[in-house]
Amino acid sequence: DASLKVFSLNSNPALAEKIAAQIGTELGKCTVTQFSDGEIQINIEESVRGSDVYVIQSTSSPVNQHIMELLIMVDALKRASAKSINIVMPYYGYARQDRKARAREPITAKLVADLFEKAGANRMITLDLHAPQIQGFFDIPIDHLQGVPILADYFEEKNLDDVIVVSPDHGGVVRARAMADRLKAPIGIIDKRRPKPNVSEVMNIIGNIEGKTAILIDDLIDTAGTITLAANALIESGAKEVYACCTHPVLSGPAMERIDNSKIKELVVADTIPLPDEKRIDKVTELSIASLIGEAIIRVHEMQSVSILFD
Amino acid sequence: DASLKVFSLNSNPALAEKIAAQIGTELGKCTVTQFSDGEIQINIEESVRGSDVYVIQSTSSPVNQHIMELLIMVDALKRASAKSINIVMPYYGYARQDRKARAREPITAKLVADLFEKAGANRMITLDLHAPQIQGFFDIPIDHLQGVPILADYFEEKNLDDVIVVSPDHGGVVRARAMADRLKAPIGIIDKRRPKPNVSEVMNIIGNIEGKTAILIDDLIDTAGTITLAANALIESGAKEVYACCTHPVLSGPAMERIDNSKIKELVVADTIPLPDEKRIDKVTELSIASLIGEAIIRVHEMQSVSILFD
Ligand SMILES: Nc1ncnc2c1ncn2[C@@H]1O[C@H](COP(=O)(O)O)[C@@H](O)[C@H]1O
Ligand SMILES: Nc1ncnc2c1ncn2[C@@H]1O[C@H](COP(=O)(O)O)[C@@H](O)[C@H]1O
Repeated sequence: DASLKVFSLNSNPALAEKIAAQIGTELGKCTVTQFSDGEIQINIEESVRGSDVYVIQSTSSPVNQHIMELLIMVDALKRASAKSINIVMPYYGYARQDRKARAREPITAKLVADLFEKAGANRMITLDLHAPQIQGFFDIPIDHLQGVPILADYFEEKNLDDVIVVSPDHGGVVRARAMADRLKAPIGIIDKRRPKPNVSEVMNIIGNIEGKTAILIDDLIDTAGTITLAANALIESGAKEVYACCTHPVLSGPAMERIDNSKIKELVVADTIPLPDEKRIDKVTELSIASLIGEAIIRVHEMQSVSILFD
Repeated sequence: DASLKVFSLNSNPALAEKIAAQIGTELGKCTVTQFSDGEIQINIEESVRGSDVYVIQSTSSPVNQHIMELLIMVDALKRASAKSINIVMPYYGYARQDRKARAREPITAKLVADLFEKAGANRMITLDLHAPQIQGFFDIPIDHLQGVPILADYFEEKNLDDVIVVSPDHGGVVRARAMADRLKAPIGIIDKRRPKPNVSEVMNIIGNIEGKTAILIDDLIDTAGTITLAANALIESGAKEVYACCTHPVLSGPAMERIDNSKIKELVVADTIPLPDEKRIDKVTELSIASLIGEAIIRVHEMQSVSILFD
């Protein structure tokens, strides 16, 4: 039975520690530093020969740094004769660059998939890809986990009255539906329309939200423009209160100020991307997906061990 | 005849302008910016369909950012039906990670070569690779240019008396020999030895440098530890004065302070990596390799145009 080893790179060491604890192991010894000129230096300080290795890294900001750390780690593991190299990427960066919307655009989400495969990754575990199509960008197996159950459990325990789950756009309806089913609640949709060019968007709300507790759900919140405008529109249209939740708290630029100043009562996020201290404001609740990922790693590893019987 | 287009990314726009002028063209229109979360956004603002495209980018600091810019640009060009995608990389970053010196080390110079090829590059023009073996990391053709002639021409015009060209280590002897031949001068070698573990290195000088004008030459100067210790050792051993030169002015960390405080009279560098204002001190002279690269681009493009006849 090949041994299981879990390594963390620099993007999310706190989550990696929790995942290792969940699996009942310790993180592998490895240092990821920079030379004076900024080039990444990786030292893996224990043997990985013949091991099934899991490398935990979100490609969150600084995204290019985190991508290169992971590519270099995969290269080092391959050359060190790991039996299998499994990328655990709670947050998959560049996922919004997943199609050519205009002429001469790159499709960076596909490029990055190709790079990880070329470097030598054998499998990936990830969570709530911005578009499920991204799974098809890989030729290696992808385990695509969902954050909805963890977010839904949290709201279920709150025992809120008269809930409606609201998707901030048409693209998020499937996710909102999954959460609504768990909470036995109806769904609403924010239908953004621009009546004429150069006229500001109108937030048209589909569904009856009068007097209800609305829960906005999205896969990621970046600058928080969409979600805070949606929350304010819901309150103006008679919602009693508005919660918001997402799996990936990107929270860049003006996000925290917007959330602070918005009608959102509480923002619930997963720990796929670490929250620096300045983002740990009263309104923000962080839930851990460590057990979800830990269980996925154990499942994948059991499967890999079984396959040895047939090798 | 396919049209030739030259684009610059963010690492060295000043050099790119000079190269375009040398070729007699203008830089292609393209913006390389960042989204709020730090993800790179590239817009190519003119058609590249059927063109031979040359993309100028050194993978200097911030190296990971510059690598990703280039990969994303190559992806965009490929999807926009460029006839050929030619990377012009005056400085090739990660070149010192070119072999496994210790167990479980990555070979990042090879990884990066694989990534550029995977993204879709067809050819590369580069200058003074840290190790010529790196050419073999690629399956695409590499044009490997030398900076020595430009550095040697500069010193020739200075008409220095009684010159000796000195290599700061055994690895650089071939380069020192090439410069010495051009200057019709002898060569010397600094032979670093550590007499015992935990005893500081001794700089043993091979060659007669008494009363001579020494020119130290290296491919790159990074923290400038080696080169400034070498210069001081040369002066202590009787050299009249010491010049230093290199193709790639990496100049990170303590480099400028060390150079300033050293016995080096003048440091001559090429413009493969831009010098920010704080590095443009009196001691530093910058020479342009724009014509060298411009000529290489014209040569490659003529060859590509000829090959059309046989398509
Ligand atoms: N990092 C990013 N930050 C903001 N917008 C992005 C980013 N990456 C891609 N986009 C844009 O987001 C849009 C895709 O988002 P979506 O429609 O939600 O899938 C496209 O117009 C992209 O140009
Ligand atoms: N960016 C860097 N800065 C400093 N040292 C490096 C860097 N990249 C690689 N190295 C180290 O430099 C040595 C190779 O340099 P060299 O012997 O000159 O080819 C190896 O020991 C590497 O670990």
